[in-house]
Amino acid sequence: MKVRVVAKILEANDRIALENRKLFDRANVFVVNLMSAPGAGKTSLLEKTLAADTGLKIGVIEGDIAGSDDAERIEKLGAPVVQINTGGACHLDANMIYEVLGDLPLETLDLLFIENVGNLVCPAEFKVGEDLKVMLLSITEGHDKPLKYPLMFQESSALILNKTDLAPYTNVDMNKIKRDALSLNPAINIFEVSCRTGEGIGAWTAWLKAKARKG
Amino acid sequence: MKVRVVAKILEANDRIALENRKLFDRANVFVVNLMSAPGAGKTSLLEKTLAADTGLKIGVIEGDIAGSDDAERIEKLGAPVVQINTGGACHLDANMIYEVLGDLPLETLDLLFIENVGNLVCPAEFKVGEDLKVMLLSITEGHDKPLKYPLMFQESSALILNKTDLAPYTNVDMNKIKRDALSLNPAINIFEVSCRTGEGIGAWTAWLKAKARKG
Repeated sequence: MKVRVVAKILEANDRIALENRKLFDRANVFVVNLMSAPGAGKTSLLEKTLAADTGLKIGVIEGDIAGSDDAERIEKLGAPVVQINTGGACHLDANMIYEVLGDLPLETLDLLFIENVGNLVCPAEFKVGEDLKVMLLSITEGHDKPLKYPLMFQESSALILNKTDLAPYTNVDMNKIKRDALSLNPAINIFEVSCRTGEGIGAWTAWLKAKARKG
Repeated sequence: MKVRVVAKILEANDRIALENRKLFDRANVFVVNLMSAPGAGKTSLLEKTLAADTGLKIGVIEGDIAGSDDAERIEKLGAPVVQINTGGACHLDANMIYEVLGDLPLETLDLLFIENVGNLVCPAEFKVGEDLKVMLLSITEGHDKPLKYPLMFQESSALILNKTDLAPYTNVDMNKIKRDALSLNPAINIFEVSCRTGEGIGAWTAWLKAKARKG
């Protein structure tokens, strides 16, 4: 019974995700669903990406349970941004996205980031109409994460390992993270970055630009 | 409609949580529901707590989506432990706990830790029959977390700020975390610890011991 309710919710969600997809295609905008645990650095990555010389016109939808801190950080960089407050819900769903699309100048954008609620579990289950999913993992979260939270690693086209500048002060085994992520998803693209120092951001934005141009 | 389904699930959960509560009372065991985002250090805190000289007989229920790494870490320290794999679910619920209680020597325990799935959102909504909730926040998650994930801070009796040894290498404002946590929950007890160096563990275990003895 419980399973049937969940299946129905996902089905309804996927229908709306397809509607979003049509709107994105019509506007010719490439859409990335950005996911991670709380505090892995999603907004910091967006700040670095917006500041990079990609030549892309980028918009952002910020998803949070409460507050508008992230949208304010993005707005400072001059990008079109909308904040969604889920009011308790632990992930964004397709309908939340559908309802704010009118508030963004979609036709003028090349790339739209949808920054999901910080959660390594539920966001991976809900399509929002994206072209691809990208996940961040802060290396301070530890090397056991891929095998403990497999779905997000399986669903993501890219894994960004952030806070690499802290590696010398921890006992994290970065090779184990990479090995386990690749065992779950052999096609995943892995980038090592530090949003604090800027190291590694260039390789990520180059990949992103190639994807968005093809999309 | 959706809201009614959620309310029903929570109602059913609370009924089973009360059953768990009766079993815990009969066995005279104090129960702590331990919650945090992924990788904040829940299992490391349990390792340090088990190794401390509390005089308490402690058991552990480990909750993870997949794997048994955490139960193996606890077992090495000689504590009775049961692993629950939620198979995708992003939190433990009362029924999952009810189903494994027969596998623990409850009558011989003073204190039972229930280590929840790593998630800063959903676990705070589901009672499992605990005496109190304790949350960890790794300081590397950033100082914006209390206002972005308010419910868990509101529900917890104690907030353990972990990985304080990494503070010099980050730009995190620990005072903001404490100020915002206290604004959400003036009664919350805050402990600063490093599970890596052991710093601050004594104050936490002294508080825990006093709580468990009273319980």
